[in-house]
Amino acid sequence: MKKVVTIGGGTGNFIVLRGLKSYDLDISAVVSMADDGGSTGILRDELGVLPPGDVRQCLVALSDSSRLMRSLMNYRFEQGGLEGHSFGNLLLSALEKVTGSFEKAVEEVGRILFIKGKVIPVTTHQVRLKMILKNYHILEGEREIYLSEEIEKGYSSIYLEPYPTVNPRAIHEIVNADLVVVGPGGLYNSLIPSLLIEGVSEALRKTDAKKVFVVNLMNRRGQTTGFTVSGYLNELQRFIGEDIFDYVLVNNQLPPKELIELYASEGGLVENDLKEARVRSIPLLGEVKKKVKKDFIQRSFIRHDSKKLAHELMNIVHYL
Amino acid sequence: MKKVVTIGGGTGNFIVLRGLKSYDLDISAVVSMADDGGSTGILRDELGVLPPGDVRQCLVALSDSSRLMRSLMNYRFEQGGLEGHSFGNLLLSALEKVTGSFEKAVEEVGRILFIKGKVIPVTTHQVRLKMILKNYHILEGEREIYLSEEIEKGYSSIYLEPYPTVNPRAIHEIVNADLVVVGPGGLYNSLIPSLLIEGVSEALRKTDAKKVFVVNLMNRRGQTTGFTVSGYLNELQRFIGEDIFDYVLVNNQLPPKELIELYASEGGLVENDLKEARVRSIPLLGEVKKKVKKDFIQRSFIRHDSKKLAHELMNIVHYL
Repeated sequence: MKKVVTIGGGTGNFIVLRGLKSYDLDISAVVSMADDGGSTGILRDELGVLPPGDVRQCLVALSDSSRLMRSLMNYRFEQGGLEGHSFGNLLLSALEKVTGSFEKAVEEVGRILFIKGKVIPVTTHQVRLKMILKNYHILEGEREIYLSEEIEKGYSSIYLEPYPTVNPRAIHEIVNADLVVVGPGGLYNSLIPSLLIEGVSEALRKTDAKKVFVVNLMNRRGQTTGFTVSGYLNELQRFIGEDIFDYVLVNNQLPPKELIELYASEGGLVENDLKEARVRSIPLLGEVKKKVKKDFIQRSFIRHDSKKLAHELMNIVHYL
Repeated sequence: MKKVVTIGGGTGNFIVLRGLKSYDLDISAVVSMADDGGSTGILRDELGVLPPGDVRQCLVALSDSSRLMRSLMNYRFEQGGLEGHSFGNLLLSALEKVTGSFEKAVEEVGRILFIKGKVIPVTTHQVRLKMILKNYHILEGEREIYLSEEIEKGYSSIYLEPYPTVNPRAIHEIVNADLVVVGPGGLYNSLIPSLLIEGVSEALRKTDAKKVFVVNLMNRRGQTTGFTVSGYLNELQRFIGEDIFDYVLVNNQLPPKELIELYASEGGLVENDLKEARVRSIPLLGEVKKKVKKDFIQRSFIRHDSKKLAHELMNIVHYL
């Protein structure tokens, strides 16, 4: 059975994993541990636990349990002192408290959800993501970086504090993988944080696995405005040390015209500027939902289609 | 397989169920739904859910799952906005929200915890327990009644508001039982609330089941101060309409002298004033813990021993 490792966090990672889950693969999700926003941020601050949010999404993506259990994991309380907390986050945090170990908590939830594969926190140290901008402004935390529109003006450094030790299981999975999938996901808040941990980039350079980069559908205003495919690859190369990718998957399917216009002001769709054989420019767009929720457009209105994406990844796996 | 039904709520009920679970019985716990204190009260007020606390205790008592899962269910968050909430309460409330039904939530948690038997809310209506004292003071809610020290001066009525409909499953279980166990538990806040619901007392009078009353170890100051066994039986008879009990189990084992003195001011140990054959005066005291936590003495320092209690109940079952 081929061994596939994903690196990332957030919704993009969820979509990749949800798609791959339908195939006969040995899947490991190596998950960013920099998240400090929303429910996850509150739990980190108040309980001192490790960030559950991204791990929860991966667990749900790989879950073979009932729809009810998956809905429960993602259920968010809507009122009172619990407002905004997702139930799955509370489950992971309570289990971390009861077992004294975040990894044991992840394992236990994996069992409850009958997950297919493994979910591996890239580190089990408490870290905060920070970024120093060229204008000397310091962005404190993943959420602040996620919300910033100043990054495109230049940054002098991005780092984790305190400097963490990598989870050796993450290295083991990368080194022994047949295929490593990086992205899609927020460049500075979901992808790069994992690459900042000593050992991860080295493992990515050394592994015999084929490496795939799944390019985001759209840019993020003030962060990757106007980035092309090579823009993403260059930025990743800065952290990995080499251009490691054997395959680059880019969506070439246009969303409805009104959305293109909408997104133009949000950073624009990512365009392919490369004519290399490794770049596969194909339709990867998920069904565009008709109903547009206010406040929800920017982040999540267009998505990769998990089936199309997994199908293309399997085309690669079949040649391994 | 003999069918045993328990009626009550709180820790006393937990101890009965935990003991009975070791025997080959068909167990149904009919649970009071009047609780409105602590974590349960907050969830009721903020989320509009049904009270999860007593149901959670019954589910854990009947659980065949790992010690870890049971610890998780009873785990209480200690800081921040989640402070005081038990994880199991959050699980039940989240599932009630996701499924739209408290009974489905109970069923689902029962599945997760591999429970032996059934846990049945006595009603699935939102109710509040109220009590009008002889001095015209109205006690609003189960918690206020639980904390009151004025009840012994007399009350003119105790009722549920709004007037609920009984859960027909509860009636079905009582009517078809071989043995019904009432108590131990807070007389006014755990036992009587279930008897206030139309149909419950009638079912208790009509069922061919043998009825056992397990008398509390100690009285509650200002509520049942100085009550003897017949005091409890008389009070229950007021609500049930008859003296239905075929067996009355009373503890005759004295706790250490210093505790007797301590409890004297808390309402005193319950003494047996009956010489009837149905009254079984036997040692039922649980191991007395050496470490006395402050604030914790009154409520929970001496307990029934779940094994001794279950053993005696099984002596009765064997003659059925």
